Order: sequence, then C-alpha cells, then structure tokens
Amino acid sequence: MSVETVAAEQSEDLVLREDSEGIARLTLNRPKQYNALSLAMMQAVRRELERIGEDASIKAVIIEGAGRGFCAGHDLRELRGEVSRDFYKQVFDTCCAMMMAVTNLPQPVIAKVHGIATAAGCQLVATCDLAVTEETARFATPGVNIGLFCSTPMVALSRNVPRKRAMQMLLTGEMIEAPTAAEWGLVNKAVPEDELEDAVMGFARAVASKSPHVLKIGKRAFYEQLDVGLSEAYRQTSEVMTENMLARDAAEGIDAFLEKREPTWQGA
Amino acid sequence: MSVETVAAEQSEDLVLREDSEGIARLTLNRPKQYNALSLAMMQAVRRELERIGEDASIKAVIIEGAGRGFCAGHDLRELRGEVSRDFYKQVFDTCCAMMMAVTNLPQPVIAKVHGIATAAGCQLVATCDLAVTEETARFATPGVNIGLFCSTPMVALSRNVPRKRAMQMLLTGEMIEAPTAAEWGLVNKAVPEDELEDAVMGFARAVASKSPHVLKIGKRAFYEQLDVGLSEAYRQTSEVMTENMLARDAAEGIDAFLEKREPTWQGA
Amino acid sequence: MSVETVAAEQSEDLVLREDSEGIARLTLNRPKQYNALSLAMMQAVRRELERIGEDASIKAVIIEGAGRGFCAGHDLRELRGEVSRDFYKQVFDTCCAMMMAVTNLPQPVIAKVHGIATAAGCQLVATCDLAVTEETARFATPGVNIGLFCSTPMVALSRNVPRKRAMQMLLTGEMIEAPTAAEWGLVNKAVPEDELEDAVMGFARAVASKSPHVLKIGKRAFYEQLDVGLSEAYRQTSEVMTENMLARDAAEGIDAFLEKREPTWQGA
Repeated sequence: MSVETVAAEQSEDLVLREDSEGIARLTLNRPKQYNALSLAMMQAVRRELERIGEDASIKAVIIEGAGRGFCAGHDLRELRGEVSRDFYKQVFDTCCAMMMAVTNLPQPVIAKVHGIATAAGCQLVATCDLAVTEETARFATPGVNIGLFCSTPMVALSRNVPRKRAMQMLLTGEMIEAPTAAEWGLVNKAVPEDELEDAVMGFARAVASKSPHVLKIGKRAFYEQLDVGLSEAYRQTSEVMTENMLARDAAEGIDAFLEKREPTWQGA
Repeated sequence: MSVETVAAEQSEDLVLREDSEGIARLTLNRPKQYNALSLAMMQAVRRELERIGEDASIKAVIIEGAGRGFCAGHDLRELRGEVSRDFYKQVFDTCCAMMMAVTNLPQPVIAKVHGIATAAGCQLVATCDLAVTEETARFATPGVNIGLFCSTPMVALSRNVPRKRAMQMLLTGEMIEAPTAAEWGLVNKAVPEDELEDAVMGFARAVASKSPHVLKIGKRAFYEQLDVGLSEAYRQTSEVMTENMLARDAAEGIDAFLEKREPTWQGA
Repeated sequence: MSVETVAAEQSEDLVLREDSEGIARLTLNRPKQYNALSLAMMQAVRRELERIGEDASIKAVIIEGAGRGFCAGHDLRELRGEVSRDFYKQVFDTCCAMMMAVTNLPQPVIAKVHGIATAAGCQLVATCDLAVTEETARFATPGVNIGLFCSTPMVALSRNVPRKRAMQMLLTGEMIEAPTAAEWGLVNKAVPEDELEDAVMGFARAVASKSPHVLKIGKRAFYEQLDVGLSEAYRQTSEVMTENMLARDAAEGIDAFLEKREPTWQGA
C-alpha cells in the first residue's frame, strides 16, 4: 500500500471513539478486513491513546472491534504490497509503539473481545490491562502458518499465559476457545454474548470509580516492577507507596473509609 | 500513632510464638484490628523471624492470624495518625524488610489463612513459600478503594498469579474467594475449615522431615535463580548442586535411598 | 562409576534415534535404570541434538523413554561412585548443557511422557518446548527426600508452573498426577495411554508442516525475549519480524494465504 493510500485511509474513521461515564470506547473500524492493523490503523489508535492520556475526564478505556471480530492482526495485503526493509521496520516499530502506548497509558484499558482475536489482535488482548471475551470467540497466534512467526505477539502472550501454553499457540498456530483463554489467563472472563457488554462495563465502571491519580501511579508501578528483581521491585514500590500516601486522594480515601462514608476524589 | 504508643504496644504480645515438632508457629495477635500490620507489629514479626533464622531446632514456620481473619494489611489509623514522609518511608521500608525476611529465612514458611487476607495481608500470603486457606476465606488488594494503590503487595501478588488476574485484583479491589485463589496459584490449597490445621501441618511435617541444611540451600537458590536469565540461572544452580552433593546430608540421603532405609540428617 | 565404565556404556545404544516424516524420535534407553541420566547418557543426548540441529531434514523432535517410565533423573549410583568436586561439576554442567541444547535447538522438541518423570527427568519435560503425557504418569522433584535439592530442575520447573506450585513440589518432594501437571502448565496435555502416540504425533506433524526456517527464527526469539524487560523484548522482536518478513517463506506463506492455496516452504 502506497503512502497515498495510507493517507487516504486516514481520512476514514479507522478508529471510532465514544465517551460516556468517564469511559472512552475505542472501536477498531475496518470491519470488512476484520479490523486488520494497517499502518494507518495503528497510527490512528496510537494518536487516540495519546489524546486520552491527556484527557482528565477519561478514567477507563475500552477497546473493541467493529463487525464480525475483534482484530485479525496485521494487514497482510499491505505487508505484501510494499516489500522493503524500511517499510517493514516502520510497520513493526509502529505496532510495538501502539502496544507500549496501551501499557503506558495512565488509564486502565479493557479489551472487549468477540469473534476472533488473532496474531497482533491476540497480542492487543494480551496487552490490555484487563480483557473480557464472549464465550464463542477464538484466539490464535497463527503467523507460523503463513511463514511469519508471531514474534512481537509472543512478547505479550508469553507474559500472560504459562510458557508451554504460549509455545503451543505459537508453534502450532491452532485456535483456542474463549473458555480456554480464560482458564489460561489470557483474558479475565469468558461470558455469554448477551452478557459481554455488562461484564465489560462492570470492569470499566469499577475502575472509573477510583481515583485517576492513584490508578495512574499504580498502573505505572505495576509494569515497572515486573521487569526487575525482587529487591529492586520492593525498593521501587516502597517509594511509590510513600508518595501515594502523601497524595490528597489517599488522605481522603482512608479518612472516608474510617468514617464509613464515600470518598470524593480530587485526582491528586 | 505516636512513638510512645508504638512503644507501649510492643510490650503486648503482638506476635505469639509456639514451637512444636521442630515447627515454629507465629500468630499475628491484634485480633480486634484484624491483625493490622502496625509498625510495631511488623518489627515484631521481623525480630521473631530473625530469631527463628538462627534457631537450628526449627525446620518449618507457620504464620497465622488470631481472631476472625488472617491479616487486613496496614494499620490505617496509624498511617493517618502521623502524616510525614519520614514516617511513611519507615512504615513501607519496614514492611518490605519483613516480607524479604520471609523470603530470606532459611526455613520454609507456610501461611495458614482464614477469614480475610487483604492488602499487605494478601501480600504476606503471596510471600510465604507455601499457603493453605480454609475454603471460605477471601483475598483482596483493595487499596485502590481508599486511594492507596497496593503497590508493594503487587510485587508478591504479580509473582504468584497470572498478570491479568493480578491486575483484576489491583484495579477493581474486588474480593476473590479461596477456591479461586487456589486455582490462580495464590495459595496451594483451599480446604474445609475443619481440615485446615491438618493440611497446614501436613505441609509443615513434610518439610520438617527433610534436611534443614538442604532446605536452606534450595530455598535460597530458588529465589535467586528466579531473578536472572536462563543461562545465568543454570550457572548458579549447577554450582549449588555441586556444593549440595559434597554435603554430608546428600551422601547420607542418597546412600539411605540406595540401601532402602530412612536417612538420618546431620544438618550439614 | 569409573571413566572406563562410562566409556564402555557409550558403546551401548544409550539414545536411540529413529527418523520418520521429518520427525526425529530420541529414546532414552536405559530401561532397567528408569533411563537415569548418567554422564554418558547426557553426553549422548547432547551429541544427538547437535547432529539434529545440523540436519535440515528434521523439522521436529520427540523425546521419550524406554521401558516403564520417561526418566528418573540423575544416576545416583554414579553420583555416589565418584565423590569429587570435579566430577560433580562435570555432571551438573553437562546436565545444564544438555537442557540448554534442547532450548537452543532450532527445531521444536516435544516430550512424550509415560510412567514417571522425576528430578532431572521432570526438568527435561519442563525444558521441552511442548509436552504430552499419558494420564497415569507422575511427576516430582524429590531431591529433597535424598538430601539433594532439585536446584537445577527448579530452573525449568519454576519457569513453567506458578511459584507456589513449584515450591510445593520442591519442598515436599511429593508426586503430582498427570492431570494436575496439565492443569499447572507443566505439560500441554494429559491423555489416555492409548491416545498418547497420536497426541504427540499430532503436535509433531503440526510443527513439521511449518517452515523450518521460520520455526528456527521464532523459537530462538521466544526464549531470548523471555529473559529481558518489556521494551527490550519489543525492540528485539520488532527486528525479528522485519527479518522474517524479508524471508522467502514469509512471501510464499502470505501469498499462498491470500491466494487460498497451500504454501511450499523453501526453508529460507
């Protein structure tokens, strides 16, 4: 796909956003392509996440897909349309930057999965902080079937499911069912289709009721401490706890708890 | 809480200790406060663990809570009683030091959980080498509900349960039931209340029947190798195996096995 | 065991190899000793893996044990036969090198488990990329029972199962049943005995149908990215994806997929 076509596609609404109750809902919107992550799509997601990160009114984010499935991964026609190292580097670097943007976003991000979540689509589910799926959805990292090992997807996958489960998905490319994904820890819950929205909103509202300032502190600390050894993790988080205790929302939250009333967050 | 009050509370028996069959049982003993981890309580636990670490007669440790639950985490009144960075730093550093003391103790430590284990109480369960719970107990890291994200608890939690399970507990603050805690790997077993003591003692006696010298070698190596890459982990543990083979208890243990008799440990 | 005896034993067929359908089957062949990993046995496995690594006709490897069980770990008589630091160092370094050879082998390795897999035998199962067991097999790291903590086995074990499960096995030495091993993630599947061969071959054929070049890229990247932090993992794998996209098998695989035909791998 040429730069022109990419530019043209940006003018469409590749990513829809709807805000309600302090919750931003992003919808991947290439339903005919199973929301394939073209370069333009990944750039659009990243831009929208940047805006959300600076939007104090948003306390939680939902990512879902339009049409028949959540997301089928990279746009294979685009990948074969421009054969060059530079283009591939741009595509995969953009993909990694988009995934890191989910992890680095101050607000928690919840994947709402239906239909299929494969390759980088499965990675996006693994990357979100929480995930709920309808119980007939299917998950796979099938790159090996088309000669393109799911190497970036496995970064998120192997940090969410046990090692041999990840290897099974990566080496065989086979589909796993939603209940299995829930059992393995890839998603938090698998629910009947007609309960999916309620289950997702249950998480989103629970998260949105907390202090955004405290969520931001905690989410960042969570991913930072996972990447270091035990002693260093305690050194980091002990500092985080001390800072957190000095925040107004901690004073308010603890006082409200001791006085048996609801807290009023100031977001600081 | 002033320094005077802390000092006064130390004179009470904040942590009870009872030894039997080479097993030390520590009971967190602030039952009216759900065994909240005041600074004095954490210092008392740490001191007792230090003593146990040097006590060759002790081969396993059980930690449990007096009254209605295992432990409800930090003492919130104390935290709000003295608002200062220095005090908070002291509290959280002491908490981390207490948790590390469990990990660094030569003897294996088993959590015996009933009622609730929340926040730093849930962390203490995650930190113990083994844990058994009665099946109606509940677990949570609910700090987010009171504006104080469970950042130190998550260090232990996220090293025990899959990432999305940990995030669910941390971001929503919701309670999880004992059978779920067992399924997720936070505890080894969830048993009926009237089987709890037997299940805990089953683990404790199993552990106490081994060579304390060998347990010490193995426990230390376990946590060290978890924090390094695969090659380095093998380099470390290959050395540990060589040293272990040169210990008298390995010679005795292997000879006893080959001769089909019970070994007699010399603890060296 | 003297050097002479070791040399003598090498002349036996310690490790049998049979190739079929591009799948190499290695059989540990000391059935009377439950396939105990004598120094000679470990050297033989390592040599065979080296040959396989350079054999372009082999696309997947199965490791199984002759006789009543998969593998019972180190050869205890040999370990007690020559008491010296140098000999122990050689044994454990050779063991680690054999395990790393499985991890570093370009081709995926599948453990086919029956009977028992204990100590270094359990480690070998944990080390293989995939594992299938018949449902009556049992697993343990029982070194602690004989005064020799399973310190090298725990490197693989603790990277496959949750921390408290690993500690339970290591500290108590107790046997766990095949269905539990499957639930914990130590093996991919536990199946009835008469379905074991089919289940193993199902995995082996699935793997063997992929591009060996792509499997090699992906397997190596998998273990490398597990040992680094999230950002570095993405940096590494983004490069891997770019290289992979430039391979002929990716072009062929994606084109075949888009043209709805079967790919023909060139292995490059």
